[in-house]
Amino acid sequence: MASSTITIPANGAATLPTPGQVVFVGAGPGDVELLTLKALRALQNADVVIHDRLVGADVLALANPSAQLINVGKQGFGPSTDQEHINALIVRHARASLRVARIKGGDCALFARLDEEIDALDAADLPYTIIPGITAASSAVASIGQALTKRGRNASVRLLTGHDTKGFADQDWQALARPGEVAAIYMGLKAARFIQGRMIMHGANPDTPVTIVENASRPDERVIVTSLANLPDALQTLTSGAPALTLFGLAPRDTAISRHTTQSPLLSQELA
Amino acid sequence: MASSTITIPANGAATLPTPGQVVFVGAGPGDVELLTLKALRALQNADVVIHDRLVGADVLALANPSAQLINVGKQGFGPSTDQEHINALIVRHARASLRVARIKGGDCALFARLDEEIDALDAADLPYTIIPGITAASSAVASIGQALTKRGRNASVRLLTGHDTKGFADQDWQALARPGEVAAIYMGLKAARFIQGRMIMHGANPDTPVTIVENASRPDERVIVTSLANLPDALQTLTSGAPALTLFGLAPRDTAISRHTTQSPLLSQELA
Repeated sequence: MASSTITIPANGAATLPTPGQVVFVGAGPGDVELLTLKALRALQNADVVIHDRLVGADVLALANPSAQLINVGKQGFGPSTDQEHINALIVRHARASLRVARIKGGDCALFARLDEEIDALDAADLPYTIIPGITAASSAVASIGQALTKRGRNASVRLLTGHDTKGFADQDWQALARPGEVAAIYMGLKAARFIQGRMIMHGANPDTPVTIVENASRPDERVIVTSLANLPDALQTLTSGAPALTLFGLAPRDTAISRHTTQSPLLSQELA
Repeated sequence: MASSTITIPANGAATLPTPGQVVFVGAGPGDVELLTLKALRALQNADVVIHDRLVGADVLALANPSAQLINVGKQGFGPSTDQEHINALIVRHARASLRVARIKGGDCALFARLDEEIDALDAADLPYTIIPGITAASSAVASIGQALTKRGRNASVRLLTGHDTKGFADQDWQALARPGEVAAIYMGLKAARFIQGRMIMHGANPDTPVTIVENASRPDERVIVTSLANLPDALQTLTSGAPALTLFGLAPRDTAISRHTTQSPLLSQELA
């Protein structure tokens, strides 16, 4: 079988976790091949890998075999207790002079509560570094053959969340209701009826295309094509618990290959 | 020297360019280690690599040694002539049953004129697939220890361009002028004074932090920290011709490691 072997010299030392340092790693949307080379190296050089629920087993399998894996994605306590628990866990392992990789689904910079974890490290006077990852919006539009921006249509795109600490997030729905606007809505499903109501109240065209991409880039990716008017019906067809990204203002291209991988390829690793 | 070797089985066939098919590849912001594994595989399996000016020599060095490299980033004709020339070039090579990788800096989905190139392929009835990449905004915030969104501060972020086909892009400056807003402005330098004027006209605080990241993730990355009021002075210090991303509403964390790589590591490759 044809396979490619890549040798990565370890001369980018500053990118590797060092004892007592935390590397925040964006794992990308799910497909193990959407990991960056830098993320892979961090995983291979960590003593402890602290990961969310959405980081897949195939990604975690790339960690150093001797690394301790800690899943902090279990739901149990309330959200804020959980976050404080996670912060304390990261600090404790870094204080013990371990090389800590804190890996999150997607990109660390988007809806990932990165600031709260860095605040905890700052308070403990511990160093950190950040490796960016592919965010779900980039992966979801790639699957439907679209771009997030387009000359003559939209010179800006909004990435927003459907809910925040106070419940449904307060967004500038009026601005989004204008023709040609495009937004990628993270964690938008619970808020979908609320968002639909706000948009239509502000004069959005009910025929505005809406595409929901479930499990973007994963083997079980599913694309649901609907419109603002029909959004509530589409919600009935979703898979419970699956991560989903809502693309407001975009429909798939007719010619799009709806999934750009047929199977999430396995990566086998060896350390030379 | 410690180095890691990764063997990637070639069982993700759908992700590889096939004869007559075009794979659009996001190269990320510059650091070769911010390539995804999928992008690397596409480069290694292409007959022709059509690339922009901002895709670095170290990234292109990872292409199949027998691949033809075509630089379409040269400036010469007007922008629209250039784009038509690029479209025709892509179509011609795909029609010749070659495996074509069309590689762009950053993410294909953002300010990359992807739609125009796909339209040309659609018109020629040629298949394509898209591999997302790390966009400059994700890399720039990582360098300054910040996230693009934060609970209690901003539940949305705008990615926008400073100019479009008609000149300075018409954006919702009024909405951006509100406290707590965050935006990543691509190609914003020429429009910086225009943007500053619009923002202040709409009541933005002149002390709003503005951070410009030049050559994000590259060895020559430079972070310029300023404010909305002082933006014109900061512009005087920029490197001519360097790609720059403007982060509106964000200043670097005091504790941020301003560059998360000290040197862009080389990748050597061998095919097994």
